[in-house]
Amino acid sequence: MSSNRAVAYQGPGRVEVIDTEYPTFELKDGPGVNPANVGRKVPHGVIVRTVTTNICGSDQHMVRGRTTAPLGLVLGHEITGEVVEVGPDVEFIRVGDIVSVPFNISCGRCRMCKEGKTGICLNVNPDRPGSAYGYVDMGGWVGGQAEYVLVPYADWNLLKFPDRDQALEKIMDLTMLSDILPTGFHGAVTAGVGVGSTVYVAGAGPVGLAAAASAQLLGAAVVIVGDMNEERLAQARSFGCETVNVGEGDPADQIEQLLGVREVDCGIDAVGFEARGHGHGEAAAEAPATVLNSLMDLTVAGGAIGIPGLYVTGDPGAVDAAAQRGSLSLSLGTGWAKSLSFTTGQCPVMKYNRQLMMAILHDRIQIAKAVNATAISLDKAPEAYAAFDAGAATKFVLDPNGYVNA
Amino acid sequence: MSSNRAVAYQGPGRVEVIDTEYPTFELKDGPGVNPANVGRKVPHGVIVRTVTTNICGSDQHMVRGRTTAPLGLVLGHEITGEVVEVGPDVEFIRVGDIVSVPFNISCGRCRMCKEGKTGICLNVNPDRPGSAYGYVDMGGWVGGQAEYVLVPYADWNLLKFPDRDQALEKIMDLTMLSDILPTGFHGAVTAGVGVGSTVYVAGAGPVGLAAAASAQLLGAAVVIVGDMNEERLAQARSFGCETVNVGEGDPADQIEQLLGVREVDCGIDAVGFEARGHGHGEAAAEAPATVLNSLMDLTVAGGAIGIPGLYVTGDPGAVDAAAQRGSLSLSLGTGWAKSLSFTTGQCPVMKYNRQLMMAILHDRIQIAKAVNATAISLDKAPEAYAAFDAGAATKFVLDPNGYVNA
Amino acid sequence: MSSNRAVAYQGPGRVEVIDTEYPTFELKDGPGVNPANVGRKVPHGVIVRTVTTNICGSDQHMVRGRTTAPLGLVLGHEITGEVVEVGPDVEFIRVGDIVSVPFNISCGRCRMCKEGKTGICLNVNPDRPGSAYGYVDMGGWVGGQAEYVLVPYADWNLLKFPDRDQALEKIMDLTMLSDILPTGFHGAVTAGVGVGSTVYVAGAGPVGLAAAASAQLLGAAVVIVGDMNEERLAQARSFGCETVNVGEGDPADQIEQLLGVREVDCGIDAVGFEARGHGHGEAAAEAPATVLNSLMDLTVAGGAIGIPGLYVTGDPGAVDAAAQRGSLSLSLGTGWAKSLSFTTGQCPVMKYNRQLMMAILHDRIQIAKAVNATAISLDKAPEAYAAFDAGAATKFVLDPNGYVNA
Amino acid sequence: MSSNRAVAYQGPGRVEVIDTEYPTFELKDGPGVNPANVGRKVPHGVIVRTVTTNICGSDQHMVRGRTTAPLGLVLGHEITGEVVEVGPDVEFIRVGDIVSVPFNISCGRCRMCKEGKTGICLNVNPDRPGSAYGYVDMGGWVGGQAEYVLVPYADWNLLKFPDRDQALEKIMDLTMLSDILPTGFHGAVTAGVGVGSTVYVAGAGPVGLAAAASAQLLGAAVVIVGDMNEERLAQARSFGCETVNVGEGDPADQIEQLLGVREVDCGIDAVGFEARGHGHGEAAAEAPATVLNSLMDLTVAGGAIGIPGLYVTGDPGAVDAAAQRGSLSLSLGTGWAKSLSFTTGQCPVMKYNRQLMMAILHDRIQIAKAVNATAISLDKAPEAYAAFDAGAATKFVLDPNGYVNA
Repeated sequence: MSSNRAVAYQGPGRVEVIDTEYPTFELKDGPGVNPANVGRKVPHGVIVRTVTTNICGSDQHMVRGRTTAPLGLVLGHEITGEVVEVGPDVEFIRVGDIVSVPFNISCGRCRMCKEGKTGICLNVNPDRPGSAYGYVDMGGWVGGQAEYVLVPYADWNLLKFPDRDQALEKIMDLTMLSDILPTGFHGAVTAGVGVGSTVYVAGAGPVGLAAAASAQLLGAAVVIVGDMNEERLAQARSFGCETVNVGEGDPADQIEQLLGVREVDCGIDAVGFEARGHGHGEAAAEAPATVLNSLMDLTVAGGAIGIPGLYVTGDPGAVDAAAQRGSLSLSLGTGWAKSLSFTTGQCPVMKYNRQLMMAILHDRIQIAKAVNATAISLDKAPEAYAAFDAGAATKFVLDPNGYVNA
Repeated sequence: MSSNRAVAYQGPGRVEVIDTEYPTFELKDGPGVNPANVGRKVPHGVIVRTVTTNICGSDQHMVRGRTTAPLGLVLGHEITGEVVEVGPDVEFIRVGDIVSVPFNISCGRCRMCKEGKTGICLNVNPDRPGSAYGYVDMGGWVGGQAEYVLVPYADWNLLKFPDRDQALEKIMDLTMLSDILPTGFHGAVTAGVGVGSTVYVAGAGPVGLAAAASAQLLGAAVVIVGDMNEERLAQARSFGCETVNVGEGDPADQIEQLLGVREVDCGIDAVGFEARGHGHGEAAAEAPATVLNSLMDLTVAGGAIGIPGLYVTGDPGAVDAAAQRGSLSLSLGTGWAKSLSFTTGQCPVMKYNRQLMMAILHDRIQIAKAVNATAISLDKAPEAYAAFDAGAATKFVLDPNGYVNA
Repeated sequence: MSSNRAVAYQGPGRVEVIDTEYPTFELKDGPGVNPANVGRKVPHGVIVRTVTTNICGSDQHMVRGRTTAPLGLVLGHEITGEVVEVGPDVEFIRVGDIVSVPFNISCGRCRMCKEGKTGICLNVNPDRPGSAYGYVDMGGWVGGQAEYVLVPYADWNLLKFPDRDQALEKIMDLTMLSDILPTGFHGAVTAGVGVGSTVYVAGAGPVGLAAAASAQLLGAAVVIVGDMNEERLAQARSFGCETVNVGEGDPADQIEQLLGVREVDCGIDAVGFEARGHGHGEAAAEAPATVLNSLMDLTVAGGAIGIPGLYVTGDPGAVDAAAQRGSLSLSLGTGWAKSLSFTTGQCPVMKYNRQLMMAILHDRIQIAKAVNATAISLDKAPEAYAAFDAGAATKFVLDPNGYVNA
Repeated sequence: MSSNRAVAYQGPGRVEVIDTEYPTFELKDGPGVNPANVGRKVPHGVIVRTVTTNICGSDQHMVRGRTTAPLGLVLGHEITGEVVEVGPDVEFIRVGDIVSVPFNISCGRCRMCKEGKTGICLNVNPDRPGSAYGYVDMGGWVGGQAEYVLVPYADWNLLKFPDRDQALEKIMDLTMLSDILPTGFHGAVTAGVGVGSTVYVAGAGPVGLAAAASAQLLGAAVVIVGDMNEERLAQARSFGCETVNVGEGDPADQIEQLLGVREVDCGIDAVGFEARGHGHGEAAAEAPATVLNSLMDLTVAGGAIGIPGLYVTGDPGAVDAAAQRGSLSLSLGTGWAKSLSFTTGQCPVMKYNRQLMMAILHDRIQIAKAVNATAISLDKAPEAYAAFDAGAATKFVLDPNGYVNA
């Protein structure tokens, strides 16, 4: 009980499984912990034994060295666990509960939480609104790609699954509730997806696939996914999406072949700031505004664009000085002429996770299949990071305590 | 009855009052008329004798030569009139009705109109969704800064005032229903303004002042207006707004003095693409992304930014090549980290004008005072354009037929 | 071209196929035509040759003699047709278009239409807001269970199918767009159905089944349908619904067996004023408040109840004097303690029909199968009315011109 | 510190100031305490010294003997206080904070709280969703018409005022944030009140007046208040409302004189289950469905009715057996024909109180004046109850610790 193993960032392109401390009800100093959070008492927290914890595309930004993440940072913000200890202030969560942990940490006591905006909680990150486990500049809450992890404000944050056996049976789907399924769903909702919509999702990584599956669940008539990675596009087609290979030129032409018109009702950016240009060769160089400008072309007048893809304020590895500051050259004139609207930011997971859990438990969505979820041991994490970075059409699910394979 | 006089664009910096044709129920060829619209029959239209017609800031973009508007284009899209002839298909509007004409022309028959999105009607402008009277690239419907004007799809478009005498008595307020009051209101609504909100309006021109007065009507706790023109800021203070002179540096500092915090709940861009930098001298040079980037700083996490200010797809007079194509360097990283949302585009006037008429008729808003509405004769239009361009804190209302001064 | 045959009400329990006049662009006097509508010119109308026209449960209220419908009233408000003549004011609809006709007639010019509330249009029924074809006290617009029918305000009212061949191929699904699919969908939407919801639909007639299928399309986790008619319940089970036989006692007990809790998130009343008590024998006598009171019990605190089922202001055949005036004894105390909300009224079809058409054309919903749509000739209408009244689990689709069987 | 005095119910028509226990961080047994709540630990609570605590119309239902409230029940759910002790789990609220206490107690940890539905919290009342201080069948949390009171889940429930001096200066307005101002506002919001609306408020008691003032704040064009009590109607007129004396017959006639039409856009029931008929003498006898049936007549087709007025499931003193069970004879047929919607239930105070506090602090609403707030000592509570029951147009504010008069 007193040991712990975890996946840590050890420099650009390097992640390792390390021995680390077993969590206590206090946030101790360590790599990436905000000084103002050091020593913070967490009597409202629980310690969970990790059931599953997924590798996320946004982890890759750190691992690629595109952020200021410190060496030794324990990664992981997509966590499902079994509660093994509860802090003295916890009232409704019990030892033995199987729970989904929203990636955005929130207090349940500030103005934002009371308004349901848990992605920008004011009390968990001394630097700015919003926080997450195991992420640079997010307050320093220790990551969950580990055997054990501390979850603060547990009564508020945790989604308890109604039945342990049922939960473990559907664990490969339920594990997606901590981040990518709600994140993709939020993208679809903020893009205005509803019954009968036509939808274009830029990006066929796990968030893009989750957005596509969410759009279907919301009743979309047609969901089109664009990417340059044929393996990922095949994954999108596996559950009924249409696809566009943006390496083959202007998506509008391909959309016209599919729909008879060059525009869709709803646009979703599931790529974010490491976007590349459309086309081959030089045209496909990194071009951070490509996706958003493309979506303004592709979305019908009066439509909405949901932007779950991450954009950052500082990107030292960016192609130009403006992008290094997080500035993009956007065709706002086009957007304005078309009366478009745009929604950015972290998904407030708690707004959606209960209803999505219900959809999973009643077999209304097969998200594990849609994203090709694959369970691996904690030790395989470094390989999985590399494979994912190389474009594997796989969502890697770490299984540090043998719940999945058991 | 068979003559007509109108205000026309005659080249950069030049507007003139010209003799022109009395309208008929057909859209004839003329400056700026889309070829595909020439000869279009308008049996569903009415001819109105103009009661009032206002000069708009967006007219100035054309008059300054910042667009491709052709010489001879009759200006004017803010029209209130008395119906003097009705086309054969008109069923509910009658001769003698005093009516407000929404600046955006719409058909009442397409998908967008059925969804209430009258700013992007599909059937009135052969080039793209959306249209307006007397405006470049908007289909070629003749402008209303004239004695008489044709209004198509009259049963759908027109808002009839319930009582003629009451309407003429409040005409200086009601004239704002054709554009700037709904446009400012739309800015406030899309910025999420509600009871108790703190609001920052960038720009103290008529649309900015209308947005500020709208925010008050919506129950905002504090409305702060920013501009560099002290006369316009004084106008904002005259109806209870706080003000910030952006020529004196970062608005956040001044907002902190007013509110105790450096951010507001809601941001409104009432400036658009001809924005200038904050500060004095060179700092105040044209810098089209200034307002939007500033609003991302000033708006609280989770907030919304309403963008009634016009952004265009082509601006030959812009400061750089990107801006000439309508591209702006936007700090999207900042916006994303704060989970902001953005709404652009023409205000769909019909969504708001009836309720705003009720507010005017029952003395809940004094919009004429707020924007310093001043009635002048049609012949004074050239002077008024010049004065407005020079920064007069005045909303000029043309009175071509003597209704106002009578 | 100058003859017409139609289904008419000829007294309680009697419908007949009669010879009637071919429509013209004027509303002539006849059974049920409001005197103020006699002679009304309809230059904005089209004449459609009926492709399909369905028998509706609300027709049964008239046929059972539960209304003041006059003898000779031509029935039918669920109409899909081919346009064969267009009035002189029609601009966008063309001869040859295959169109869905919303059952609620609306003008596209009044305040309500501009707000999208086409179920309560102010200009089509001289008696009160709202109208429909072939229905008592709805203005007198001639019914569409006929070979030909006049559709007023055609540019506004009609939904044109994008492709004729595709439309005729899917006609048994598309025919449901004129009423029951949007009506059921409206019930689901106003009950707050969304992704992950648990839903109880009272009534397994066609509207109930359409509400159930709509709830699935909206992403509901579980849809439970209650009725006393086993054949109709089997129909509900055929597309994945759970069912409750309300003849076997309190639905809460059966819901608990299905869900583990005694309440659902969303309640839909697809029965209306001819409701019966739950249970057998006397307990199953007509009891008009049964469904609503039951839904207040069954819907979770904070939930919503959608009421597409028809309630009337006068029901001469009701069980008591209060019900004859349209008054019901409702447990509002229960509803209030649970903070429930309620939405009543005709579905505004135009709010939903385009998006539902998209869902049908892209195979996202199989509504014809769900309601067991069965095409019959016009001459079989009397038999079909009788069978439907006797509880057949069938939605009868009249095919007066041989489009379906061709 | 170890004594406490409080207002208690001592039988029909009798309230007394009694000596009672000083609160501790545990819910002890006592009159009206739910057995399942006895001994409940409240480490998340704070003890507040009451600054103000108001007498509410819903207290009167108990005091009139219309409920099963036990003798000795300490009354009071409208509480503003100064925090004097904080429980060990409290993190953000501090001793010395001046706070508004929402009347509905909620946990901040259940599904309903996470959805913002704090009026139906699942964890505070063992009998059913929803709770309140000092109220029968609401869990047994001790009332706040006392010198000191315990507030559970303090970090979640409490609204802290930003500045102590400012708070005490505006205390007579801020005291309305605990219940009647949000309750009236909720009535207005759920009735669909917006800019330009015409509104009818049934009932000129404090909640009705708060609804009227809220409707003005939301931008209503005209607010009409109906009652039989001329003194209360005069109070409504004092801040710009129109009034209707329902003792003088059908409100529709009087509304027509005011508006020119017999209907309003929005209807609010601020009366509840002890409603009386319209007119004089026998016509004015208790008739619990009067207000709702009247609102269905008076509200325009497509409108909404907000029902903040309390309806109960058991009313032993009601006029007939149905009303004793909480059943009312409602003209649902009328409501359905007009496509009306209805929202019932406790106001979720936390949804509105922060924004309404901002409106008060920035002088956008004068709620104390609107309801004629009058501060009195705790000892005067029995007189105040009697005066209020007799129809005084006064909102009584108890000042148990001399904060107001100091």
